[in-house]
Amino acid sequence: MRMKFTYVGIRVRDTPKSVRFYTKLLGMKYKGRYKIEATKGEVAFLQSNNGKFGIELNYYPRSSPFYTKYTAGEGLDHLAFGVASPARALKEAKKMGHPVIKEIRGKKSRWAYIKDPNGLWIELFES
Amino acid sequence: MRMKFTYVGIRVRDTPKSVRFYTKLLGMKYKGRYKIEATKGEVAFLQSNNGKFGIELNYYPRSSPFYTKYTAGEGLDHLAFGVASPARALKEAKKMGHPVIKEIRGKKSRWAYIKDPNGLWIELFES
Repeated sequence: MRMKFTYVGIRVRDTPKSVRFYTKLLGMKYKGRYKIEATKGEVAFLQSNNGKFGIELNYYPRSSPFYTKYTAGEGLDHLAFGVASPARALKEAKKMGHPVIKEIRGKKSRWAYIKDPNGLWIELFES
Repeated sequence: MRMKFTYVGIRVRDTPKSVRFYTKLLGMKYKGRYKIEATKGEVAFLQSNNGKFGIELNYYPRSSPFYTKYTAGEGLDHLAFGVASPARALKEAKKMGHPVIKEIRGKKSRWAYIKDPNGLWIELFES
């Protein structure tokens, strides 16, 4: 059966704050913000700059049946972004209040993690 | 700065079980399985069938410094897959032991959720 993996939905506590992080720092394009009647929540949609994949920011107010106390958890290990100059990206991230939390040097490659506004791990690797 | 959103990493408790779920049911392509010296863990990589986006399955044994007790949490709200025939996909999912846990009917569209082997929510929508 033909399936098309289309987007990853993450839960956010503050939509504008997350939109800012993913667009200003990570180059996603903002596509819009919509109320969802069925969940009494709201989603904002972001698209990768090649238009091939998306991130949906899911916000549930306390009145939503989907509302639960937020724990980032381990389900989402990290979201990974390739970048031409990790050093420059990490400098910019730090300036925006997202310092490196872990840097890993393998034999042939290195990569680093920062945290998004909800504590999710974001990997930046050279590509 | 040019960033390329490349993959989403999810944490798994049993790599082969998750590989089976994402390839057999959701059409992802298996690209390989690798030990990661720096984390003392292992990753398996899956690619969408248009080759544009990936899922990395991250496994950390108890001996890994990245090991923590697994809680799915709310960070990852869901992974979304478009499918030509949701009814057929949901029937197949049920047969594989992943029944519908929630179905939502909006005014113009409907979508349904199943759970992956780690309890992560997977959305199937008509596309």
